[in-house]
Amino acid sequence: MISAREQRDAQADTAEQLAAAGVALTHEERAEIEVADFGLGRLREVGLQLLVYVNTDRYCAKELVLYPGQTCPEHRHPPFEGTPGKEETFRCRRGTVYLYVEGEPTRAPTCDYPGPHGAAHEIALGPGGQHTIPPNTLHWFQAGPEGAVVSEFSSTSRDELDVFTDPTIERAPAVGD
Amino acid sequence: MISAREQRDAQADTAEQLAAAGVALTHEERAEIEVADFGLGRLREVGLQLLVYVNTDRYCAKELVLYPGQTCPEHRHPPFEGTPGKEETFRCRRGTVYLYVEGEPTRAPTCDYPGPHGAAHEIALGPGGQHTIPPNTLHWFQAGPEGAVVSEFSSTSRDELDVFTDPTIERAPAVGD
Repeated sequence: MISAREQRDAQADTAEQLAAAGVALTHEERAEIEVADFGLGRLREVGLQLLVYVNTDRYCAKELVLYPGQTCPEHRHPPFEGTPGKEETFRCRRGTVYLYVEGEPTRAPTCDYPGPHGAAHEIALGPGGQHTIPPNTLHWFQAGPEGAVVSEFSSTSRDELDVFTDPTIERAPAVGD
Repeated sequence: MISAREQRDAQADTAEQLAAAGVALTHEERAEIEVADFGLGRLREVGLQLLVYVNTDRYCAKELVLYPGQTCPEHRHPPFEGTPGKEETFRCRRGTVYLYVEGEPTRAPTCDYPGPHGAAHEIALGPGGQHTIPPNTLHWFQAGPEGAVVSEFSSTSRDELDVFTDPTIERAPAVGD
């Protein structure tokens, strides 16, 4: 659980990274930036900052922001309400993000993650790079040394349904004092 | 119909506007920028430049780029394949876009468009402003004096099905010499 102060600091850092990527936010949106530490209490190492632009019953768009070397731990988006689950496209806007997906394991991968994971096929995305992840498939990602700003375009998002490989993870954002 | 040279020039201008908005493109994407003059042959006044990032059978994301004062003429996205038609969210990244949608007509609207149109409810979007347009409803838009870069997040896009209020318009891109 992160403190309210940690959350505010992370929101400010995220707004700054988004501004550097040319993304203008409204005053209300700054306060809506979500800070997820996945219940592990090590935000700078394992976590994700995000802003949801829109999430209708048909599509969703977000900006994902990562600190240098920060990891979003392995998960999949399971089927729900008769759909095959969330399909998502990552497009890197700034920095570098290393995405690990199911498939042939990459020899000598760039990143390591000291938690349970299985997806080992590396896809490195720099500015302008993009990749689409099929529904219900395992993936995790880590930012390079400059951090990363990544646009996510997808079908409807239901973050609370995400299934994490690490059973100790809780996706629901938890903020305390 | 625009010439191949007009198309190349518009693609270069569009890549420049996108770069100014912080949007990095790959070399391949520069060549994929679509230039639509709607068959009217007056691109700078009536037209639209766009880059499709992704268009799956579930969602779509594009960047729309407009010259100063350029208008995308009135149209709607009709139902298809059992769906209610394309639902779309515009998010302004740079410049200003004046969006006209169905609803209470705005008194003294900012823009005029010398072609057939009915939607008269004005929504002005500056950087960080966004608006969602329901499927199958009329809308048109015009850029302010600096032009505009607008991200479009939507359900699946089928541009060729768009229904324009002006019966002389053809949506399909046509390029000649």
